[in-house]
Amino acid sequence: MQLVQDSPASAPSTRRSAGFGRRLAERLLTALGNPPVRLLLWSGETVTTAREPPLVTLRIANRATLLRLMIDPDMQFGEAFTDGRIECVEGDLVRGLEAAFRGSAPGPDAHGPGAKRWARAVALLRRNTLSGSRRNIHAHYDLGNDFYRLWLDPTMAYTCAYFATESMTLHEAQIAKMDHVCRKLRLRPGDEVIEAGCGWGGLALHMAGRYGAKVRAFNISAEQIDYARDSATRAGLKGQVEFIHDDYRNIAGSADVFASVGMLEHVGVGNYENLGRIVRRALRPGGRGLIHTIGRDAPEPLNRWMERYIFPGACAPSLGQMSRIFEPNSLSVLDVENLRLHYARTAGCWLNAFEQARESVTKMFDERFVRMWRMYLAGTQAAFLSGDLQLFQVLFAPSRSNDIPRTREHIYRVGAPA
Amino acid sequence: MQLVQDSPASAPSTRRSAGFGRRLAERLLTALGNPPVRLLLWSGETVTTAREPPLVTLRIANRATLLRLMIDPDMQFGEAFTDGRIECVEGDLVRGLEAAFRGSAPGPDAHGPGAKRWARAVALLRRNTLSGSRRNIHAHYDLGNDFYRLWLDPTMAYTCAYFATESMTLHEAQIAKMDHVCRKLRLRPGDEVIEAGCGWGGLALHMAGRYGAKVRAFNISAEQIDYARDSATRAGLKGQVEFIHDDYRNIAGSADVFASVGMLEHVGVGNYENLGRIVRRALRPGGRGLIHTIGRDAPEPLNRWMERYIFPGACAPSLGQMSRIFEPNSLSVLDVENLRLHYARTAGCWLNAFEQARESVTKMFDERFVRMWRMYLAGTQAAFLSGDLQLFQVLFAPSRSNDIPRTREHIYRVGAPA
Repeated sequence: MQLVQDSPASAPSTRRSAGFGRRLAERLLTALGNPPVRLLLWSGETVTTAREPPLVTLRIANRATLLRLMIDPDMQFGEAFTDGRIECVEGDLVRGLEAAFRGSAPGPDAHGPGAKRWARAVALLRRNTLSGSRRNIHAHYDLGNDFYRLWLDPTMAYTCAYFATESMTLHEAQIAKMDHVCRKLRLRPGDEVIEAGCGWGGLALHMAGRYGAKVRAFNISAEQIDYARDSATRAGLKGQVEFIHDDYRNIAGSADVFASVGMLEHVGVGNYENLGRIVRRALRPGGRGLIHTIGRDAPEPLNRWMERYIFPGACAPSLGQMSRIFEPNSLSVLDVENLRLHYARTAGCWLNAFEQARESVTKMFDERFVRMWRMYLAGTQAAFLSGDLQLFQVLFAPSRSNDIPRTREHIYRVGAPA
Repeated sequence: MQLVQDSPASAPSTRRSAGFGRRLAERLLTALGNPPVRLLLWSGETVTTAREPPLVTLRIANRATLLRLMIDPDMQFGEAFTDGRIECVEGDLVRGLEAAFRGSAPGPDAHGPGAKRWARAVALLRRNTLSGSRRNIHAHYDLGNDFYRLWLDPTMAYTCAYFATESMTLHEAQIAKMDHVCRKLRLRPGDEVIEAGCGWGGLALHMAGRYGAKVRAFNISAEQIDYARDSATRAGLKGQVEFIHDDYRNIAGSADVFASVGMLEHVGVGNYENLGRIVRRALRPGGRGLIHTIGRDAPEPLNRWMERYIFPGACAPSLGQMSRIFEPNSLSVLDVENLRLHYARTAGCWLNAFEQARESVTKMFDERFVRMWRMYLAGTQAAFLSGDLQLFQVLFAPSRSNDIPRTREHIYRVGAPA
């Protein structure tokens, strides 16, 4: 974490360059809305423009880093953090990022176009996604099951958990999430389910093992499918769950239930209408569907650093964008729930576990990789805390179906699972 | 109900015109997807193309009525029903309309463009709205409080009720709806509320009387405002509720809570972004908002008969259309609930009460008015039963607010109000 590759923090600087750096740094912070952040410059000077005490101190390794930030902030903030040219030397990185994100809010909270441009410098982590898509698979899942096992909970769920009670552990909350989804879908023994983008298979196995459903689960990651098939064998659920190594676009046949948890982020808005057509075709007349996805309050393009290094091709859609799935395809939205703060807590658990496993991760990869993933996980938590990212669960049914529960009370009737 | 104004049903007809009428009637029913409807022609012939027994028998008074239906179905079906040239002589009008609406579903259930065109003939009632808008006020609320008192429940709520338990009466369900809204908004004593489009003031008085809120409620109907002020005085709530005779566009000041139940239908999609701006400006940082509106699964223009005679200028928006309120204005959607079948039951209660009060209504107006309102209320119930109309409650908050409950369990924790 503390490595500085370009130039040491102890490099001598002239008074003139120090003054220049200070002015640049002040301009950056002012444009960001004066967040409670302190910058420690290569000269040893510290700069803050906030009235309140700083939540975090970020060391900027050299003048070139500050200049690069001004030229191409979207890409350079992430690059510099990964290189170690920007480091968190004091305080809480997540709270500092959250404060910076809050300062860069669009709409009534924003600070003009200058602020918006600069905001991108630290807001590069506002977007991220957590499963699916062919390119993403390569960038993300080829890292290997052993890596994810180090910091995910035992269900290997790599999506937002649901902390049904305040005291739940991450593992309990991931199981509670699966139950929350199954209750919304009113899953019954014998129900036939199609799952699109099944990750390591946790939800499919839960639906089969706890609810007696028959599940066909699709995924284009060979490594995840292998893992899921092994799990099915170990759990004695091979007869009830079929893990299919294929794209959602090749889903055939019909089902009572369609579920997709953490795949939509990789589908691409242009493919939403087609996804809806596939779902509508698959759903029987009394069927139910649920899509769980990272989203946003308004459409925005993906940050370039995030797209390049973390999730190629990903998009966190707004509800208006998501309506392209449902509206052209006679699908009726019954229930939308926003679980944003549950994702903040989930990402916080992952970040803690990741830091605990830092030595193992460093051995598997290197320090640079650790810094990149720290930035990604901290930024994810900050983005959900600040409201830059949302988590939508959308329940729907064919437009003509009257097989609709009178109230949503049934979702809350049962206590947290054992 | 049984009056036929243009030409008596007993008018003699030649064999030739009877055969022509039969062929026309068959073509109509076939194009509609062969719903379980029987047509009784002026010649005394009955026509049905359905395999199952008919749910309803509609008498067509004369050949001219059938021909007009073919030329301008959108307008002529409603005109003919209002005139008594189309009558329900047997069976259940609501179930018959529902079946016809189901046959005319857009998307995968549809029967081609010919069917769609014909579908409009009976689907004219698919759209309707239940409050607000300046023109609507004149068309609708100038009918007088005495008229609405005949068939609304004592709260005078003219919006979808919430049947929290199966056995609730309409009156209980209207109070349960108000509690449902207040619980979603986590209304607390001392909260300042702005209500846009307050009808006869039932929700505002409930918020003040049961929850200790301070409410400023806006409405452009002078007659409703007078009624609401009288109610406030009788309830001893004048100090807590201010009824303001003004348009939502003139809302000033700030509040903890924004609520609008049954007004959006009359705002017009083109004004949604401006409505959202007004709401965003009014809401304090930790504020909460709720919009309750009739909606649709996909955008569609208003039926001409309905717009001309029942609700001028109204629109039942899709969720995609509603996103124009929230997305440009830094408002975060927290919860969407679709209560469509609650509206079907509400409209059924109104229709029953309306039929009970038929003699009084006839004395107030005339037979023609009774037929028009029967058509409107029956069509409303059928549209919600068939899925042609939806009822959305959308809960939202400023994007940066983290004053969000962890779960929605609190909405269901409390039993139905006494």
